[in-house]
Amino acid sequence: MRRFVIGRARNLLENSCQNYQFQRYLLSSSQSSYRFLSSTPVVDSLSSSYSPYSTMAPPITVNTINPKVLECEYAVRGEIVTLAQKLQQEIQAKPEAHPFEEILYCNIGNPQSLGQQPITFFREVLALCDHPSILDKSETQGLFSADSIERAWQILDQIPGRATGAYSHSQGIKGLRDTIAAGIEARDGFPADPNDIFLTDGASPAVHMMMQLLIRSEKDGILCPIPQYPLYSASIALHGGTLVPYYLDEATGWGLEVSELKNQLETAKSKGITVRALVVINPGNPTGQVLAEENQKAIVEFCKQEGLVLLADEVYQENVYVPEKKFHSFKKVSRSMGYGEKDISLVSFQSVSKGYYGECGKRGGYMEVTGFSADVREQIYKVASVNLCSNISGQILASLVMSPPKVGDESYESYRAERDGILSSLARRAKTLEDAFNKLEGVTCNKAEGAMYLFPRICLPEKAIKAAEAAKTAPDAFYCHRLLTATGIVFVPGSGFRQVPGTWHFRCTILPQEDKIPAVVTRLTDFHKSFMDEFCD
Amino acid sequence: MRRFVIGRARNLLENSCQNYQFQRYLLSSSQSSYRFLSSTPVVDSLSSSYSPYSTMAPPITVNTINPKVLECEYAVRGEIVTLAQKLQQEIQAKPEAHPFEEILYCNIGNPQSLGQQPITFFREVLALCDHPSILDKSETQGLFSADSIERAWQILDQIPGRATGAYSHSQGIKGLRDTIAAGIEARDGFPADPNDIFLTDGASPAVHMMMQLLIRSEKDGILCPIPQYPLYSASIALHGGTLVPYYLDEATGWGLEVSELKNQLETAKSKGITVRALVVINPGNPTGQVLAEENQKAIVEFCKQEGLVLLADEVYQENVYVPEKKFHSFKKVSRSMGYGEKDISLVSFQSVSKGYYGECGKRGGYMEVTGFSADVREQIYKVASVNLCSNISGQILASLVMSPPKVGDESYESYRAERDGILSSLARRAKTLEDAFNKLEGVTCNKAEGAMYLFPRICLPEKAIKAAEAAKTAPDAFYCHRLLTATGIVFVPGSGFRQVPGTWHFRCTILPQEDKIPAVVTRLTDFHKSFMDEFCD
Repeated sequence: MRRFVIGRARNLLENSCQNYQFQRYLLSSSQSSYRFLSSTPVVDSLSSSYSPYSTMAPPITVNTINPKVLECEYAVRGEIVTLAQKLQQEIQAKPEAHPFEEILYCNIGNPQSLGQQPITFFREVLALCDHPSILDKSETQGLFSADSIERAWQILDQIPGRATGAYSHSQGIKGLRDTIAAGIEARDGFPADPNDIFLTDGASPAVHMMMQLLIRSEKDGILCPIPQYPLYSASIALHGGTLVPYYLDEATGWGLEVSELKNQLETAKSKGITVRALVVINPGNPTGQVLAEENQKAIVEFCKQEGLVLLADEVYQENVYVPEKKFHSFKKVSRSMGYGEKDISLVSFQSVSKGYYGECGKRGGYMEVTGFSADVREQIYKVASVNLCSNISGQILASLVMSPPKVGDESYESYRAERDGILSSLARRAKTLEDAFNKLEGVTCNKAEGAMYLFPRICLPEKAIKAAEAAKTAPDAFYCHRLLTATGIVFVPGSGFRQVPGTWHFRCTILPQEDKIPAVVTRLTDFHKSFMDEFCD
Repeated sequence: MRRFVIGRARNLLENSCQNYQFQRYLLSSSQSSYRFLSSTPVVDSLSSSYSPYSTMAPPITVNTINPKVLECEYAVRGEIVTLAQKLQQEIQAKPEAHPFEEILYCNIGNPQSLGQQPITFFREVLALCDHPSILDKSETQGLFSADSIERAWQILDQIPGRATGAYSHSQGIKGLRDTIAAGIEARDGFPADPNDIFLTDGASPAVHMMMQLLIRSEKDGILCPIPQYPLYSASIALHGGTLVPYYLDEATGWGLEVSELKNQLETAKSKGITVRALVVINPGNPTGQVLAEENQKAIVEFCKQEGLVLLADEVYQENVYVPEKKFHSFKKVSRSMGYGEKDISLVSFQSVSKGYYGECGKRGGYMEVTGFSADVREQIYKVASVNLCSNISGQILASLVMSPPKVGDESYESYRAERDGILSSLARRAKTLEDAFNKLEGVTCNKAEGAMYLFPRICLPEKAIKAAEAAKTAPDAFYCHRLLTATGIVFVPGSGFRQVPGTWHFRCTILPQEDKIPAVVTRLTDFHKSFMDEFCD
């Protein structure tokens, strides 16, 4: 081996045009070859020259990992859920282990886990794109709708070599971005540029990308609604920034007041925080409100005046349940005010996880990025390219969501029926649960105008609050824990979403199937009564 | 509206048990309602009390975004590729625009983009899991192999409610992790725990997760091989850490010397860097070497002695082309040395993107995490849960890769033929290209024992180096640029992977289809000759 090493080294030296550094490098390498060939562990030969204790890396403990990881929290899959999973396993092992037969997960916006069915047309297209070799088989005609076969061909023709297993362009397949841009334009009445679209594995990675871009240090702040979906607080913590809260007004159906934005901005500035962006979740999570267009205009104006990036989380854009409200994208609102690329920096997030499609596990989504300079856009592109691209099935789904079957398509009627069935059912469940909450003593619940959640406020008796303190847990978490162990129902404590200090809430999804809702209502109502009996004087 | 606000507010006040803070909050809200209802932009009413210039957020420019984003680079999709895409568009518009008919992308490990076909059985299973309603149709029997149907049922039974569109457990579907753990055990002969598996959207997000966990500041260092796959340098930069280089020995076929690890570790410590982990890519990227088992034992011993986390990138574990080498996982090597959970912290990365399956676009992969305390594991789980879960298709693929058809299965023969066809072809292409490079004047090329790349060293004439300097570009980038514009061939300059200072390389994949390889060789050879003629005196 050594002869070989030296021979090769000589060749390389002779060939080398810049050999000084390389000579030095090689010399140290050939000396070290001896140690490599020796069976003595390297350390022993050095043990006389160092103390293992002083040079060893610190062990990996919670005290030596990145403190930002410690700081970040994500209650949607937090302690209450871990406990629920444990109880579920106990019931599976021994059905009489608890005073309930099943866990009713109302903690997470995960519709298909609770029986919601996927949109048939979407899954037909995905399956065909996964296995294109069946496209021209006769049996396929009998198994799949004609328009799903046609759409699969169309999509495959947009993918170089029809290779659905290849990495795509870092922003996603161009043809799919064209489709999405066309869908955005059809929705808004204003043009969208496919080059502004970045397809991502769900909306969450896109949010992380923007937080990573905007946050330089803990002196950079991001205005976030309180209550908020805890992806934002987690992401800001992970990226070392500061969450600047603005409080939604529970008394006005979770209204978003620009004066509150202004106040919080000034307060942050007075603390030396540079606020860089405003997060708006519309329709809201966990609060379910749909902003009025005038409100949105005031928000856009605020961002423009203050030079803030507007981060518009619009993943629930298809979930609006009340006739008096309508979803308007912030892109549309900005453009309708005459504001273009030069006026406002806007990032709009969409996902395939919500709406009527509920394809959470497929991890599809995108951000539409407008109003940034070309060189900042290059940086965004660069960060996207480090991860190469998002998953192709998710990309395909995103294009289907933004361009579903149209009137006249073979699948249109069944698509429409599936979609309307899901949305009307969601609206009914939202109402049923809202009414149920409002009947509970000490509980008030705003209407869920949209999204998938209710966020009732619970007024807890003093005795309960003291019991919570004794148990070293927040009062709303105490309530949720008691609820779970008594009934199997899983809500997420409001603390997980933040709330006006001194108020308590919990988030409940509207997703259990309609036939389960009566059980949820009954168990909840009975539990609540006995809880109040126990803790009220 | 105001009457409504005040009425609701009164109700809430009466109901409120802890109303002091809430009263204050409400009072400021009702005052601010006036501004909300007014059509005057909020800013005007405050304009007397602030200067717009001093309070506005700094505009978003490359100088005001996170500098870590600016620092990170990813050459695999860098400038040379952007130029190639531009030239490609020019040829599509005007075929005679350049002295070549097509771009030959040899820059990225993306096999299916260059014609490699997916494994039929894998795609059958994916398609069936995407659209399970066809599973019991008679036409399906005619279109899909019986064992793919059976496997799809098996997988669906492992998914609660058979809901492939639902978010799964944050670490991935349990049943799939069981399959993967069994596959690891079959491969290594040592047990694997499904609870140690974290399924991720490809290996890259798993790498990012570990960097995020381990890097607290720029004082934390990660030992990385030079040359390295630039995900590592990019991730370390994005997380604010320090890359501590260790040089692979080109003269010994890119050997990894433990003495070099020791030297670099000591150097880093003397600069005040706390080295936390060692990255080893085996088989190597871009270098293609497969480590000898003895070498791996020395590496494991080194990590144990120094208390470093071993980050084992093993995504090319199925790509070994030489009979004298074999892939041994670091998990197997550690366990075979008698080292268990208490002895070494080891994270092993695998992906569905490489091997013989090449499913880059599906974004499937996992990390197997062993040797960390329970509370650190909880933190890893928490970070994984912020993104909810990886895409289900990728999870399914990962389980198929670790548990492919077995002897006796209906699909075994065709699966084996597809697999062997791809691997033997890769081995042939590796050899053909290696020989072609070694024939070029001033170029030496180590054998690609594994992975998907060659990393030849080029000795550039002084005149070329000066021309590169004048063009303000690195010499290897200069060569690659010239190569591209003359021939359409896309290599990535070695600078993108780092190299011993003063040496120049480029990375070429072995992925163009076999029938394209002669064209690559001919064009490259002709170009190289004229380049040397131009720049040698």
